[in-house]
Amino acid sequence: MAFSERVSRLKSSLIREILAAAQRPEVMSFAGGLPAESMLPNVEWADMPVSLGQYGMSEGEPALRQALAAEARALGIACEASQVMVVSGSQQTLDLAAKLYIDKGTEVLLEAPTYLAALQIFQLFGADCITVPLLAEGPDLQAMRQRLERHRPAFAYLIPTFQNPSAVRYSQASRDAVAALLDEFGVTLIEDEPYRELTFDGGSAKPIVSSLRKASWIYTGTVSKTLLPGLRVGYLIASPDLFPHLLRLKQSADLHTNRLGQWQALQWIGTEHYREHLRTLREFYRGRRDAFEQALQQHFADLAVWNSPQGGLFFWLTLKQPLDTRTVLNAALAQDVAFMPGEPFFANPDANHGYLRLNFSHIDPARLDEGIKRLASVVRAAQNLQAA
Amino acid sequence: MAFSERVSRLKSSLIREILAAAQRPEVMSFAGGLPAESMLPNVEWADMPVSLGQYGMSEGEPALRQALAAEARALGIACEASQVMVVSGSQQTLDLAAKLYIDKGTEVLLEAPTYLAALQIFQLFGADCITVPLLAEGPDLQAMRQRLERHRPAFAYLIPTFQNPSAVRYSQASRDAVAALLDEFGVTLIEDEPYRELTFDGGSAKPIVSSLRKASWIYTGTVSKTLLPGLRVGYLIASPDLFPHLLRLKQSADLHTNRLGQWQALQWIGTEHYREHLRTLREFYRGRRDAFEQALQQHFADLAVWNSPQGGLFFWLTLKQPLDTRTVLNAALAQDVAFMPGEPFFANPDANHGYLRLNFSHIDPARLDEGIKRLASVVRAAQNLQAA
Repeated sequence: MAFSERVSRLKSSLIREILAAAQRPEVMSFAGGLPAESMLPNVEWADMPVSLGQYGMSEGEPALRQALAAEARALGIACEASQVMVVSGSQQTLDLAAKLYIDKGTEVLLEAPTYLAALQIFQLFGADCITVPLLAEGPDLQAMRQRLERHRPAFAYLIPTFQNPSAVRYSQASRDAVAALLDEFGVTLIEDEPYRELTFDGGSAKPIVSSLRKASWIYTGTVSKTLLPGLRVGYLIASPDLFPHLLRLKQSADLHTNRLGQWQALQWIGTEHYREHLRTLREFYRGRRDAFEQALQQHFADLAVWNSPQGGLFFWLTLKQPLDTRTVLNAALAQDVAFMPGEPFFANPDANHGYLRLNFSHIDPARLDEGIKRLASVVRAAQNLQAA
Repeated sequence: MAFSERVSRLKSSLIREILAAAQRPEVMSFAGGLPAESMLPNVEWADMPVSLGQYGMSEGEPALRQALAAEARALGIACEASQVMVVSGSQQTLDLAAKLYIDKGTEVLLEAPTYLAALQIFQLFGADCITVPLLAEGPDLQAMRQRLERHRPAFAYLIPTFQNPSAVRYSQASRDAVAALLDEFGVTLIEDEPYRELTFDGGSAKPIVSSLRKASWIYTGTVSKTLLPGLRVGYLIASPDLFPHLLRLKQSADLHTNRLGQWQALQWIGTEHYREHLRTLREFYRGRRDAFEQALQQHFADLAVWNSPQGGLFFWLTLKQPLDTRTVLNAALAQDVAFMPGEPFFANPDANHGYLRLNFSHIDPARLDEGIKRLASVVRAAQNLQAA
């Protein structure tokens, strides 16, 4: 059996196993990043034209590209529809970017922690991950400059708004400083923003790509967190030098994104009923966050610290007494509780023990308190054992 | 600008340019592989459950996997639903297979000619393409044995039923011989069958994978040619040793295939109304083939030879007097006729001049004769010029 060299880097399926275990109906899951079922909007399909059954363009539907470009311009991103590509969920942007940039040993610059599935695909292609610690207001800028002076990363991959997993939102000052650094060193930015619209305090800050003067860039977003993930509709917007390459890579990956989801997304993007839906969604998730935080304060105050997330779908807990949280996963599952250990969100998991990512959007409120209580008791037991 | 090494192998966009030119309404296009618009079935969406808006499983919808496994077993492929993965069009199977097998310099065994987009993605990943000439009843078996004795290909990629571009259907004897050879040399088979159901003479032959005794295999199909390509729903079925790797690669590529298209496919696969639709489709395309052949006989009989396709969507013409058909493309487009030059379907285009692939499914019958006539006159003019 002769597989490619990259297959030796396919990660163990810890996450798949957690999510599979979390499917059992009795399990209280804080593991995934699923929208709440009750907030999936009712969508209409009756008016969809039959002609959408035919093959479509690799770039995506022209009208949807126009609408997405208009939304991006409203955020301050100078772009035309010709720079917009519809992709099969924003995960595909990461696949295309990995193909465009990464050979074995290619350096890439990431936040620590960062989005697990990004880490996985960059490492699959052989990336050498250079990391910058994430602080409350954004990346450690001194560390970032240092890394850029010593390394030549092919790109920096950043999630500046309600980061997964840490929930950090970069301040505007931090965004400006990051843009200036990337321009200074001529490093391409991949900016991933699935959570921008899920803001609970109304605060916002401009996409970093809108402040770049020289560096190339890819901005990526999705309708998965605010409309329906099952549509598998995401998008990327790229600087004109990158777009033609990304387009050919898209074509060779799956020809084009499904047109049903694209049509449905177009019924929402930029409309008043979408804005209304987003308002409802923010209010709903803000309520879930508040309830979650209350449960955490009751059961985890002695065990961990956290910042209250101002958006997104996750709490990121730092244990006061470090512990490899992967080691308590089975005990938690035995108590019918699923969570995501923090270690796999780091390029070097073994040097980063003691974090938990907890999703607050999906759990049934009636089971929230019991779930957090059980999780706390599992962590407490493990720490007592460790201390003994 | 530091792209990956593989990007230097991204092919020029000749085909994209042809297809873009073919979009002009005045162009008579024989270039693409589009189903006829008038044969796209009306589909109903009213009963689709809202819950399909949520994230789904990377493997695909369980009920669809069951249905696809049952269809495959009916063709003689011993398999379980656990070996079936729904993909974003069967093009994605090629992307996943390339990731699974191909490093720079990895040998792969292909038919000559072969499917252009397969060639492109295998070469993008750095494959060294070993080719076997395709004869009327299947590959040149002596040449195939020779290649297998001299090389160690990671896999053989074959399209045994109404091949794109050549329309060749392997005989059952050829299939048995190919299976025996691959078993003997322990070479994995990737069998691509988008056209199996589009048979015009009722003849059929078993998938090759059903005759393998030892070799690993991936069988891939799609609903794009018989239902709606815009759904972007294909599938792969793999031997159990390969499936877990393919699944992780699928997850890292786009998490999962869109669930709308999967639900719609499930409304058809294995049903009587699908069988009825397939009967209508075969009859319709048989009629288009007959009309096309008549036009060819009238205008191309002195210029080219061809076999009448017994299925699929293409005529494959061999010019009696070789000519790099890429050189007549602009002249044809100037006459508002688009076609696909044969050269790009070969790993070594410059050693394989003088073929044209003509799609017969999509052209408006009212413009068929005029289009073929113009194409013939463009070819005749180029050959006269060459002879002068």
